[in-house]
Amino acid sequence: MSSPIDFYFDFSSPYGYLAAQRIDALAGEHGREVNWWPYLMGAVMQLTGAKPLTLRGDLIRNYAVRDMARSARQHQIPFQLPSVFPVPTVAAGRAYWWLRDTDAAAARDLAKALYSAYFAADRNIQEAAIVLEVAAECGVDRQALETALQDEAVKTRLKDVTNEAIERGVFGSPYFIVDGEPFWGNDRIDQLAEWLRSGGW
Amino acid sequence: MSSPIDFYFDFSSPYGYLAAQRIDALAGEHGREVNWWPYLMGAVMQLTGAKPLTLRGDLIRNYAVRDMARSARQHQIPFQLPSVFPVPTVAAGRAYWWLRDTDAAAARDLAKALYSAYFAADRNIQEAAIVLEVAAECGVDRQALETALQDEAVKTRLKDVTNEAIERGVFGSPYFIVDGEPFWGNDRIDQLAEWLRSGGW
Repeated sequence: MSSPIDFYFDFSSPYGYLAAQRIDALAGEHGREVNWWPYLMGAVMQLTGAKPLTLRGDLIRNYAVRDMARSARQHQIPFQLPSVFPVPTVAAGRAYWWLRDTDAAAARDLAKALYSAYFAADRNIQEAAIVLEVAAECGVDRQALETALQDEAVKTRLKDVTNEAIERGVFGSPYFIVDGEPFWGNDRIDQLAEWLRSGGW
Repeated sequence: MSSPIDFYFDFSSPYGYLAAQRIDALAGEHGREVNWWPYLMGAVMQLTGAKPLTLRGDLIRNYAVRDMARSARQHQIPFQLPSVFPVPTVAAGRAYWWLRDTDAAAARDLAKALYSAYFAADRNIQEAAIVLEVAAECGVDRQALETALQDEAVKTRLKDVTNEAIERGVFGSPYFIVDGEPFWGNDRIDQLAEWLRSGGW
């Protein structure tokens, strides 16, 4: 088995959500696993000065909203821009990493459920209460998670993942690393697939 | 024949250059013509506050440079980031629009030659002297062009095209409009092709 694909994303990223619907299947076609790395892109944006597309004025915002919906429809992915957007995703990130360290498969299911809750069902995952609800729907122990969300070790875990991502040069969502080669953006997925198929160029 | 594809670009845009190598053939496969619209993206950036990828700090710059080269290699397009980059492209734009109004085919050939001069041969097309050289190599009357570059009507033509682009909502390079549907970025070309093939979704 070749080395896994690192998939970095923020739970508030529409293009991260779209990529999350496709990356596992695509990697599987090429005999690859995917490591999911939710992190806090806000920390990177403070470094780069970048702003979400939807906060860059009407011209870019209007295009971005149209493009997100169109890119979702192209792959039959349910999508609606959430009423509150973007949001900080600290609670979602902590929930993922807490679960990840005991049950990787359950953590991935939770990540997908959190993404769908936010981008398909307009549930505001900024709120810890919503994260707890979604986790409970996934069969996660609600009380244990509620405690974990305030656990210093869990808080540190998410911070560490974010800092390590920045050290690796990650600055966007989705952001993939395949055998050392970085691919930024949902719109690099086809190029990434071609890279996997051909072994690079 | 269906309506033409509008292709907006700035002569200083690497992704515009890459798109320029492919858009005519792709459009032709779907029975479409392409209208080439070089404009001054600097004017739009003043409105949107956007900055070129290479001026957004090392993290993004390093990725962008790598991505440009990789995207060029993927399609066997000669490419090197010019020594002086980005540059204002007033002279190139004026040359195009002056020629365009008498000979559309020659203007397109000139556009391709200017793009290749800048992104494949590292000739600084910011300089009117280089634009004149490249034009002469394309068989354009050098003296007539030299006069045209200072002609008020030609200056106004480029300004008008730029303002009309902004009024249409164009803010990037490349930026395509197909039957009213906007596509921003060289990385939307595959989606654009699928749109042409399927009639949209």
